[in-house]
Amino acid sequence: MKQQVGTLPRVVIEGVSPQIDAGRYPVKRCEGDRVLVEADIFKDGHDLIAARVVFRGPADETWKTARLDFQFDLDRWFGEFSVDRLGSWEFTIEAWPDHYGTWRSDLGKRVAAGQDVRAELLEGALLLHKAAAAAAGEVRVRLQKAAAALANAEADVETRVRVALADALLDDSYGPHDAAELTRFERVLSIVVDRKVAGFGAWYELFPRSETSDARVHGTFQTAERRLPAIAAQGFDVLYLPPIHPIGVTHRKGKNNARVAEPGDVGSPWAIGGKEGGHDAIHPDLGTLAEFDRFVAAAERAGLQVALDFALQCSPDHPWVKQHPEWFFIRPDNTIRYAENPPKKYEDIYPLNFWCKDRAGLWNACRDVLLHWIEHGVRTFRVDNPHTKPLAFWEWVIAEIKRRHPDVIFLAEAFTRPKRMRSLAKLGFTQSYTYFTWKNSAAELKEYLTELTRSEMAEYYRPNFFANTPDILHEYLQEGGRPAFRIRLLLAATLAPVYGLYSGYELCENVPVRPGSEEYLDSEKYQVKVRDWDAPGNLSGEITRINQLRRENAALQQLANLSFLDSEFDGILAFRKSAPGNDLLVIVNLDPHRPHETMVSVPLAELGLSEDVPFEVEDLLSGARYTWRGARNYVRLDPMDKVGHILRLVR
Amino acid sequence: MKQQVGTLPRVVIEGVSPQIDAGRYPVKRCEGDRVLVEADIFKDGHDLIAARVVFRGPADETWKTARLDFQFDLDRWFGEFSVDRLGSWEFTIEAWPDHYGTWRSDLGKRVAAGQDVRAELLEGALLLHKAAAAAAGEVRVRLQKAAAALANAEADVETRVRVALADALLDDSYGPHDAAELTRFERVLSIVVDRKVAGFGAWYELFPRSETSDARVHGTFQTAERRLPAIAAQGFDVLYLPPIHPIGVTHRKGKNNARVAEPGDVGSPWAIGGKEGGHDAIHPDLGTLAEFDRFVAAAERAGLQVALDFALQCSPDHPWVKQHPEWFFIRPDNTIRYAENPPKKYEDIYPLNFWCKDRAGLWNACRDVLLHWIEHGVRTFRVDNPHTKPLAFWEWVIAEIKRRHPDVIFLAEAFTRPKRMRSLAKLGFTQSYTYFTWKNSAAELKEYLTELTRSEMAEYYRPNFFANTPDILHEYLQEGGRPAFRIRLLLAATLAPVYGLYSGYELCENVPVRPGSEEYLDSEKYQVKVRDWDAPGNLSGEITRINQLRRENAALQQLANLSFLDSEFDGILAFRKSAPGNDLLVIVNLDPHRPHETMVSVPLAELGLSEDVPFEVEDLLSGARYTWRGARNYVRLDPMDKVGHILRLVR
Repeated sequence: MKQQVGTLPRVVIEGVSPQIDAGRYPVKRCEGDRVLVEADIFKDGHDLIAARVVFRGPADETWKTARLDFQFDLDRWFGEFSVDRLGSWEFTIEAWPDHYGTWRSDLGKRVAAGQDVRAELLEGALLLHKAAAAAAGEVRVRLQKAAAALANAEADVETRVRVALADALLDDSYGPHDAAELTRFERVLSIVVDRKVAGFGAWYELFPRSETSDARVHGTFQTAERRLPAIAAQGFDVLYLPPIHPIGVTHRKGKNNARVAEPGDVGSPWAIGGKEGGHDAIHPDLGTLAEFDRFVAAAERAGLQVALDFALQCSPDHPWVKQHPEWFFIRPDNTIRYAENPPKKYEDIYPLNFWCKDRAGLWNACRDVLLHWIEHGVRTFRVDNPHTKPLAFWEWVIAEIKRRHPDVIFLAEAFTRPKRMRSLAKLGFTQSYTYFTWKNSAAELKEYLTELTRSEMAEYYRPNFFANTPDILHEYLQEGGRPAFRIRLLLAATLAPVYGLYSGYELCENVPVRPGSEEYLDSEKYQVKVRDWDAPGNLSGEITRINQLRRENAALQQLANLSFLDSEFDGILAFRKSAPGNDLLVIVNLDPHRPHETMVSVPLAELGLSEDVPFEVEDLLSGARYTWRGARNYVRLDPMDKVGHILRLVR
Repeated sequence: MKQQVGTLPRVVIEGVSPQIDAGRYPVKRCEGDRVLVEADIFKDGHDLIAARVVFRGPADETWKTARLDFQFDLDRWFGEFSVDRLGSWEFTIEAWPDHYGTWRSDLGKRVAAGQDVRAELLEGALLLHKAAAAAAGEVRVRLQKAAAALANAEADVETRVRVALADALLDDSYGPHDAAELTRFERVLSIVVDRKVAGFGAWYELFPRSETSDARVHGTFQTAERRLPAIAAQGFDVLYLPPIHPIGVTHRKGKNNARVAEPGDVGSPWAIGGKEGGHDAIHPDLGTLAEFDRFVAAAERAGLQVALDFALQCSPDHPWVKQHPEWFFIRPDNTIRYAENPPKKYEDIYPLNFWCKDRAGLWNACRDVLLHWIEHGVRTFRVDNPHTKPLAFWEWVIAEIKRRHPDVIFLAEAFTRPKRMRSLAKLGFTQSYTYFTWKNSAAELKEYLTELTRSEMAEYYRPNFFANTPDILHEYLQEGGRPAFRIRLLLAATLAPVYGLYSGYELCENVPVRPGSEEYLDSEKYQVKVRDWDAPGNLSGEITRINQLRRENAALQQLANLSFLDSEFDGILAFRKSAPGNDLLVIVNLDPHRPHETMVSVPLAELGLSEDVPFEVEDLLSGARYTWRGARNYVRLDPMDKVGHILRLVR
């Protein structure tokens, strides 16, 4: 007992949203977003309550507030505020008993029942004096005047009641007036605010060494620079380069992942480090650091942000192996352990020992690699296999970087069990690779997208829907050919606001290294690959059109605004993406081999349409307009012609 | 960076269950219960993990541990421990990388692939040395021997591998061996362990003043004592008495809640306090404190625990009004505010001002009232309208009491919005009144029971299914008569392990004070009521039988073991209650007016039955046996005869 009672909460605040794992992790938003806040707030008795969200942006010393509104039966309160700067925001909820509001509400009932309210008016005056004491300026003066009017026994009761019930007084008397009565939610919750491109953007992956017209001649930043305008013109935002560092020669892999390289084989860019340097060096065949800077600047001018690969592993020739053998796993015979997944061996790679004795040295060195490239204009990193390095390391290093550079984006390339993928997103990764490539049926897509958009994941997990990667050429693309590539492009670009293509996709490259493998034949991972970007049947025009539509339609720029529509034939997927003033119905034939038809259910009520009045939809892909009527509407899609519609509701 | 890295978690532990609001509130269990614990536990890479729950009981200084087992794909871990003492228990989860387990698993794969494992055996020996250093006694010796055997280059590799893979070594080498590698979940969670009767018991409510044969003669503890054997014989566990304190005379209510009492009117026991004393006094017409003590002892001998009412409000004649006017709400004219819900006035009651200046004095006084009755053998309190007093007060006072007397049970009589009712249960109430009386259709019962048994509420909200109360005579009972009383008795006693009856129920008293009211005519709240317990048609025999079945069938002693069965006619409710070796199918006709028949779906697979083989069920109410076959089985229930079955599956 004693004074501790004074600190006890007058109001209960719980069930605050958004909130991840009791505030252990932040939720994610983009610059300019509104943050919708909810909470369960209640107290004993029949008193009214007032509540607000208090929030502040990075480096703000003072808190701002926004009032919450409520739904009585549910004891649920709602409010919002905007996050207009990059970095870490904080918010929490405060509530207090609304004494004047309660008194005023009771007064109304007493007056209506014809009761004598003279004693009550004196109580009201006391409450207004209290409010005045906590107020300043004109508000204070108004409150004092009102208090005097309520207490004025000379005036008639009707006049005093009219003053007491005036709406303006409700605002003036809004609390809290007494710190002891203010209850604050027990945790301050945080929000990471990223650049808009973290939430909406199109990625393109390119091996600069392949930007050559002769496979025997290694491409360079200079040659790659020539392709920037074409990539930008297709509407991409981020240009992701696999590792650009020196490549080891010891146990170098040959073409098609051969255990032994032939002379002239260029090796895998992920076998990082050679005599020319490690993670902070540039492969001499690609150019110099100055040429890289020039490339980044040229990309920026074209409207493309360069993303680098952050792959924390070393070839046996990496400088760290000699300088810091203690950063690796040392075997009893004093050799360094190469990568293994017994009984498989990966002798061209040494994993780092993140819990070694000099972990401070190693962790700082890893962080410094990021800082080095940030200094050279890179603000986006695609992180290779983060689930094979400690989760605690990622949480630490991402915080270290974002504290100084809140504009940096980290994409997690983890393909592992669901909870590990989610954990990486929670602890700091800005975006995440997904299972999208393996979800090809309507049922799979619906289930997975529902999880991504309707569960708590939508608060922290930003899916990046790469339609292919150098490691993943799905059987669906192998077997479905060009129509399959068109289908998956349309799905990736409309289901998710962030998506990506690995170069070669536009040429529908789909020959696996062997049947049953998801690896490419003659994979660019192990060799230079020359392509004809203008080859017949290429998808550049379609990509350009779809990226343009993404930029023009707000509904395609958000994640959680997705809902699936009934389609009577389940090989045709239908979904709605909606934003204020922008309602899209996307309908896709998932079968790359055959035309199909179906009846699609349009959610008339949600769209504000009536059963009887026809409405018009415009296919943004073809320009065709259709007049539809009622909930069931006919669609026929031929994969040799239209694989899908992006129908905009014409208002 | 620096040493903080050393404290970073090697393993992620999240999604720990059971846990209420991130550990803000304890979960509830009864003495002897097993606590099933689950958690998401994972780390980077492919290392194996080991995990355990650590727990301790009240006043334990050291922690006990129990291993967790896992389901790999889900990264979900499971374990359990028992709580065998009353009071507050704590638990949390610990996990660590299982180096020897990982090494051993890899060794098996290497050996199977025919690899040279001599270097690995040396690594294994180092791991065993580390384990030995952390072990003691025989285990240490065995580990040292095994380490030596693994490292013995003289021995053949096969022998060394055999030693390394021996199962016994797995147990001996079980960690953690290194405090730096031990990750502990960030919160210690708590469990309140109550007496068994908190989770399973039958309540009976009785006004002792009505234990008289002449309404003009006030009943006493002595007269009430004579009824104890009959109540005990019906199988009740708890005998709840409305307030037994002096009753105010100022603004005393008359019979049927008349605004003005007639001479001789006894008043409402909830208008507590008179010139004879307040909450710690006994109404002189009931007897003396010594007679109360005798009554409690006699009840105890009969197997009944006496529960008192804790109603924190005062009549204008309560001693506190004079001694501590500052504990009440003082109006500007220095009068004390009576209870109101404008425009309604309750002039016979003064509410307490729990946030008054001397709140320490008031709160302590309230607590001391409880301690006073605890000293007189009372261990159960039914708390009147707790939702009209501060939630913080209840959390404080319940903790104050349970710290000293962990055997005390508090039942919350709150009928208010769902979140407020749930909050009272979370913050400490042992049991709670419910909406049960207002749930009379199958759909309502299914929805409500699903919420109570399948949501998080099952962890902290123990419903006490009173079938009636002095304030609630539901229309269903008013209109349905005796069959309705039998139906609701059967439902209350089988759907919930804790249920209660207010006296008069067994006589099917169902006349409301006026049409549309849930109040009784000639309510015992305002007058002495004489009854003939042997009146024809009384339900004492049926109550006795049902309470006996509750004691004989473990399935009726738990809450969350409920599942509803399909019934083709929805006016017949069917559900299963199951415990090991005790499978019950309860089937109830909800219509008190007409017989009905239906086909009930028996969950054959869950019961281990097959479609083709007949099985026998025994109606525990009637003794009849039926041979059933397959999933669909016929039931006919006539409310004038059988209102329901409690079918036990005969094995």
